[in-house]
Amino acid sequence: MKKEENFSEWYNEIVEAAGLCDKRYPIKGMNVWTPYGWKVMTMIDSYTRRELDATGHGEVNFPLLIPETEFKKEKEHIKGFDAEVYWVTRAGENELDVPLVVRPTSETAMYPMFSLWIRSHQDLPLKIYQIVNTFRYETKQTRAFIRVREIHFFESHTCHTTEEDAQCQIEEDIEILEKISRELCLPHFLLVRTDWDKFPGAYYTVGIDTVMPNGRTLQIGSIHHYRTNFSVPYDITYEDLDGEHKHAHQTTFGMSERLLGAVVGVHGDDKGLILPPPIAPFQAVIIPIISKKAPEQVTDACKLVTDILNRSGIRSKLDDRNERPGAKYYEWEMRGAPLRIEIGARDLENGVVSFARRDTGEKGAIAMDSVSAGTRMLLDDISATLYARARSVQDSSVTDISSLKDVPKGELDETKTDRILRMCWCGSPECGHKFEDSTGFKILGTPYGAQAFPGKCIVCGKESEKQAYAAHTM
Amino acid sequence: MKKEENFSEWYNEIVEAAGLCDKRYPIKGMNVWTPYGWKVMTMIDSYTRRELDATGHGEVNFPLLIPETEFKKEKEHIKGFDAEVYWVTRAGENELDVPLVVRPTSETAMYPMFSLWIRSHQDLPLKIYQIVNTFRYETKQTRAFIRVREIHFFESHTCHTTEEDAQCQIEEDIEILEKISRELCLPHFLLVRTDWDKFPGAYYTVGIDTVMPNGRTLQIGSIHHYRTNFSVPYDITYEDLDGEHKHAHQTTFGMSERLLGAVVGVHGDDKGLILPPPIAPFQAVIIPIISKKAPEQVTDACKLVTDILNRSGIRSKLDDRNERPGAKYYEWEMRGAPLRIEIGARDLENGVVSFARRDTGEKGAIAMDSVSAGTRMLLDDISATLYARARSVQDSSVTDISSLKDVPKGELDETKTDRILRMCWCGSPECGHKFEDSTGFKILGTPYGAQAFPGKCIVCGKESEKQAYAAHTM
Repeated sequence: MKKEENFSEWYNEIVEAAGLCDKRYPIKGMNVWTPYGWKVMTMIDSYTRRELDATGHGEVNFPLLIPETEFKKEKEHIKGFDAEVYWVTRAGENELDVPLVVRPTSETAMYPMFSLWIRSHQDLPLKIYQIVNTFRYETKQTRAFIRVREIHFFESHTCHTTEEDAQCQIEEDIEILEKISRELCLPHFLLVRTDWDKFPGAYYTVGIDTVMPNGRTLQIGSIHHYRTNFSVPYDITYEDLDGEHKHAHQTTFGMSERLLGAVVGVHGDDKGLILPPPIAPFQAVIIPIISKKAPEQVTDACKLVTDILNRSGIRSKLDDRNERPGAKYYEWEMRGAPLRIEIGARDLENGVVSFARRDTGEKGAIAMDSVSAGTRMLLDDISATLYARARSVQDSSVTDISSLKDVPKGELDETKTDRILRMCWCGSPECGHKFEDSTGFKILGTPYGAQAFPGKCIVCGKESEKQAYAAHTM
Repeated sequence: MKKEENFSEWYNEIVEAAGLCDKRYPIKGMNVWTPYGWKVMTMIDSYTRRELDATGHGEVNFPLLIPETEFKKEKEHIKGFDAEVYWVTRAGENELDVPLVVRPTSETAMYPMFSLWIRSHQDLPLKIYQIVNTFRYETKQTRAFIRVREIHFFESHTCHTTEEDAQCQIEEDIEILEKISRELCLPHFLLVRTDWDKFPGAYYTVGIDTVMPNGRTLQIGSIHHYRTNFSVPYDITYEDLDGEHKHAHQTTFGMSERLLGAVVGVHGDDKGLILPPPIAPFQAVIIPIISKKAPEQVTDACKLVTDILNRSGIRSKLDDRNERPGAKYYEWEMRGAPLRIEIGARDLENGVVSFARRDTGEKGAIAMDSVSAGTRMLLDDISATLYARARSVQDSSVTDISSLKDVPKGELDETKTDRILRMCWCGSPECGHKFEDSTGFKILGTPYGAQAFPGKCIVCGKESEKQAYAAHTM
């Protein structure tokens, strides 16, 4: 299993070998979350919840099924989803009068209710979110966490009095994103998607893209400004201070289990998964090195250290199974435990515990007297190292080009990572489509909130201040 | 809104007035969980998770959709569910070759995977659970949390080498149930269901029933022993120590959002909800009583007390909205906050805070010096009082009868609660059906693990040691 030689194969093997999921469920693209994988996912969810709660979003849970009549109210939206939704048409012995859509996203479930909930400007802003599974009838080849048919995700939905307030929400969403992605040690680009690639029904979409080791980008989430595109068909209005009834301005923000797919792909290595400490079910795994010398003291010390670490808030597991230490090392490396702690008779004599870092392989010792502080420092350093490493890959992946001749030709070489193109673009759909059609690269968009970047459009040569990123996507 | 006069109407109003859910979603029986209600439900889930994790169950998440081919493998099971499942028959533009069932429960999703996971006796016991929503095409009148079409629930599934081991699991499930139900202050009966009322495919079913204030019982959960009824059709076998391949013995345990319905019905009163402290989003609500005297000191003291309580682990909310205290009292009584704390200038002079209990209406004072200990004691006492009150209703609801003439005739009088009948029954289906048909009461079953109870069958008069409970159900 060589990550660099065949990323795709490596990824497909590792997700099951590390115990994250089981792909043998009898519906393609619907996988079983096994306990270890689900634990990691719920830890990711816990950060989402922490950040959304802290910014005044209320957690709700909307029904899974949406009547076709509600689903069809926003024309662009339904056009965007028509080919990829599941339909419930029968219940018990009855054909349903109105078929029900299995939620692909919840705008059309929520907005009829928002129309009832919002009466006056005092009801705004309305900020809610839910963490649920969503469904897309994916026809491309599926891949665990990255392209699946049942998708675990969060979606936040907000309503505001003005376009400016909605814009402030986008800024807040970006702050939330930074906090969550830091826990996952995932750098990313924030790119305003092209008009032909934005979310169906959106005014504009900010895509959140991370660079995968095969030189492709993975969209791990998105933020949308809807203006009043949905509030008009769904009749979401408020009475303003001046007594007038106005349409609310709306935004949404969502990220999915692709976050976990990105963690697997970006941080993992040939030995298996490497989990960032904040989302590792076990941050430290303690392994007794039993010899003839003082076996009971070693066992006791391992229990004590596990207990000390757990009490100080470091999720720790004592692996005292009757197996060779080497087999345990192999297993916990595969599962991505950030830190391994070994304790043998000699460690006890020296008043230390030995450690091995999963990220760098570095080995060393921590004084027993300060085992929890020492472990905490190492875990923090592992997070910092994982982020820095991923950030350096992302930075070095960007290649500035000024002519179509600079674009790599033919199939993407997946063993190289310098495949994110940055260039000047006049912004016209004509040049955009021409670029995409002639190169096979996709324009990801223009940097969100970027400074002007004067240059000449890579296609038509016209002066422009617009910078664009292009890549092959996962 | 008089609970005693018209329980049904009271219940239907209170669930929305207290902010637990919104029933205006455009599919009947699929309600929206609003933030307050979802918070209560997730607190209930947190106790489920705590107890199942502590007993070695791994949390998983299985796909929502089940291929018809898998769903149909156990004959009794499919017969039991055929009339009440939703079918996905279309995806995008395509009719599906194999229709997909929207999970009504997850046996048929999980057991094909168990068949792959289990190889040897060393893989057993297998203990897993999930907390998900499940779907039933309910044709009876729906009622929030009690009879809905999308049901939030947990389901645990276990596999064992022997029938005895599976039986021990049932005992463990009952211990788990006792711990969860104590947090909710919900007494209940444990009744082995009649053969004609057990779960489709089960060897036997233990129903968990609670008494509602209208004299009806509500099944809040159930525990099933499957023996090998599913492991045979789903081919779940293990290699035993003796090298033989044997079928696993299985159990399941599940409880749903009906737990919340029971909390609403059992504890609430004419002023609204009464939440047991362990599941109240806010256990104490602090309300400033602002007068001309020392308004700033009062405000500061309220903030300080809220902070002290939150730091000591008591979920507390300062309600400092610019409204009359009376309006706040009304709202927090409706929402069921267990304890109200009021602080005014006179309280500060006396070095106390005033309190009002939601359960008894009792008012008093807590010394400021020991505000967190005092509040904690009150909350514990509120839990104890709620449990004792509900327990006394349950105990007094049971009427022993020894003749069919003792059975109340006609429609159930919903203003009376002494409507749970206890009697001797020979156990024969003939007598059981005769009893049910002639009285309109339903036999709930015989007490789980009960001592022999010698007597004469209420129908045929034959000597029997079997005790049965009968009631009208919700």
